[in-house]
Amino acid sequence: MAINIAILGFGTVGSGVAETLDINKDVIAKRVGEEIIVKHILDVREFPESRFADLVTLDADEVFTDKDIKIAVETIGGARIAYEYTKRALSSGISVVTSNKELVSTKGPELIEIAKNNNCCYLFEAAVGGGIPIIRPLYKCLAANKITKIAGIVNGTTNYILSQMKDEGLDFVTALKQAQENGFAEANPSADIDGIDAQRKLSILSTIANDGDYIAPEQISAEGISAITTDDMAFAASIGCDIKLIALYEAGEKPVAYVAPALVDKSNLLYNVNGVFNAIMVDGNSLGQAMFYGQGAGTLPTASAVCGDILEAAVSEPYENRDWTKESVEITPYDEIAADIVIRADVPAKVIGAAEAYECEVLSDEAILVKGIRHKDIAALVSEAGAKSWMHYLK
Amino acid sequence: MAINIAILGFGTVGSGVAETLDINKDVIAKRVGEEIIVKHILDVREFPESRFADLVTLDADEVFTDKDIKIAVETIGGARIAYEYTKRALSSGISVVTSNKELVSTKGPELIEIAKNNNCCYLFEAAVGGGIPIIRPLYKCLAANKITKIAGIVNGTTNYILSQMKDEGLDFVTALKQAQENGFAEANPSADIDGIDAQRKLSILSTIANDGDYIAPEQISAEGISAITTDDMAFAASIGCDIKLIALYEAGEKPVAYVAPALVDKSNLLYNVNGVFNAIMVDGNSLGQAMFYGQGAGTLPTASAVCGDILEAAVSEPYENRDWTKESVEITPYDEIAADIVIRADVPAKVIGAAEAYECEVLSDEAILVKGIRHKDIAALVSEAGAKSWMHYLK
Repeated sequence: MAINIAILGFGTVGSGVAETLDINKDVIAKRVGEEIIVKHILDVREFPESRFADLVTLDADEVFTDKDIKIAVETIGGARIAYEYTKRALSSGISVVTSNKELVSTKGPELIEIAKNNNCCYLFEAAVGGGIPIIRPLYKCLAANKITKIAGIVNGTTNYILSQMKDEGLDFVTALKQAQENGFAEANPSADIDGIDAQRKLSILSTIANDGDYIAPEQISAEGISAITTDDMAFAASIGCDIKLIALYEAGEKPVAYVAPALVDKSNLLYNVNGVFNAIMVDGNSLGQAMFYGQGAGTLPTASAVCGDILEAAVSEPYENRDWTKESVEITPYDEIAADIVIRADVPAKVIGAAEAYECEVLSDEAILVKGIRHKDIAALVSEAGAKSWMHYLK
Repeated sequence: MAINIAILGFGTVGSGVAETLDINKDVIAKRVGEEIIVKHILDVREFPESRFADLVTLDADEVFTDKDIKIAVETIGGARIAYEYTKRALSSGISVVTSNKELVSTKGPELIEIAKNNNCCYLFEAAVGGGIPIIRPLYKCLAANKITKIAGIVNGTTNYILSQMKDEGLDFVTALKQAQENGFAEANPSADIDGIDAQRKLSILSTIANDGDYIAPEQISAEGISAITTDDMAFAASIGCDIKLIALYEAGEKPVAYVAPALVDKSNLLYNVNGVFNAIMVDGNSLGQAMFYGQGAGTLPTASAVCGDILEAAVSEPYENRDWTKESVEITPYDEIAADIVIRADVPAKVIGAAEAYECEVLSDEAILVKGIRHKDIAALVSEAGAKSWMHYLK
């Protein structure tokens, strides 16, 4: 006996999946009890040079009408053809495993329900944090916790760019260009540098932490890193901080979720997460704090997570698809969220005077930490204090 | 409907389990679909002051003959009465969830087999890393990987002592005393400071990484931290390192597994793991490197892991108990293991001369890194070079 699977989309991740299943087929067969066999690879192109060329088909019907297929790996990306194929597979009782954060974050509620109704699974460990186990630990290992907070570096491209700006003293444009040359950023880098990718991943993490009460990407305020200057980086270093793009979730009646660059204090473990690495800190009411760290992208790490899900789908009874609500739930509007920020000013005394309603802390002769100020009140304070700029702060 | 469980041993962890199940009962019931109810608490003492006093019984028969009990939580510790009760529960088809690393590491092969034969589970997420999800991620999320290496700080007591020695300049005896006063070390601290606790945890991690080919605690060489001096700490700092008690596993035909203090370079993420925290780095051939970090001990964090397993046992079909071999498999004898070490000497040139067969690197005017030297060859080299001391090194 063997378990036959199809790979939909033979790009970076899809080919990594075929590779991983092949190089580790001995241990996988031992663990599953059966061989996992890639029977079809569906793409719009043929790959005559690939050693998997024989498996490639351009005909979707051939894949979806094949009764042998138990699991489909959706590594197409985007939310159009991937959405159609995922619905088609799940509706036929074929479990789908994916790394597609856009699709999971935008269509998760519907796709999870289709899977449930058809007694199959929709699994997406690889959609957040690449190779880092985070989705299953949240669902399974921390199941007895109320998740109170998540703070993560979930986008490797921006973290790489920020690390290069720090270590090499590059400005943003040069660092981005270098990231593109090294294959760490797309030709059109917007989804990464504008925080959209992080926003999608945070939507997924937040919804899980929020016990399936769906928080959609478009509800989550996202600020990217393109406005970060070399001067900002130097300022951060002067107060023992580093600038990271942080995805933040906090539990509550109306949960908090936003993506923004933040000054991360060197006492925080996220301070040491550099280059393309990702890390996600999770606070649970019983757990305390835990951190999950690893390669947030890349062919093989992402394939590792996809393949973990394939094995899960292969050996398990149809996964208890933990429902996501169809409609998104209300979250705290960004303006109303109270944040800790650092205000940079030539005359700190003026900031302290203007911020007397808040708990403040002097970090340096030009940096004042102001705690718990609502976003909507920041502009007035900055203006009143004659300050230069402000940024989120993570202790 | 409800799922009834029994807690065996109402000490620190057992009471934390009762507490966690109670404070989070709403989310747990939602996630499991049924309430989890603690029906019995078995101990040799009564706890009249506890709010769970009514549940406490001294009569084991009352617990094990109760057909309502689906899951037993073994938080007794040790390998005597805990062993008897675990066998009795599993033989009756009652799943057992535990934090007992001594029992899992010494009797795991037998207990896993009994569980399998009786169609129930033996789960032990809490036995390693306290609240940190590590066992299930290794089994599930990284299932498609060959695990090539594990390097971890798995004992919070020794890490706390070493952190205090570093930060406060205390000597070992004073730091140990302080740890005992603060409840971070036992009155009899041997299991922690001599590396025995770490040895047991490494036995569990190594056996899982080694695909169930059992590596017993007594096969694993363990050196503790009681010989570490303030002078060693200062030396470590002088070469940008910190001393940590490291549990190391490396895959191979004859795997490598040992516990020893090591100089950890500041570029390594484990360098920043301080106090009672634990962290486990895992290398997989597809994953690359990942790290799992969190509170390695403590009532609620450990209870978090135990309760995660309770929920797993409650909702899942009997867990595919991944067999451990009955007999332990051969590992590389400690003497034959090639290690990276730092030799401390007044005349580094003499070390380099004596170590010409090895790749060396000068770290300071009294520290030479020697790579890949077998343990059995170290004493001769140290003597020949007229060196003061040596220690393992982790980049």
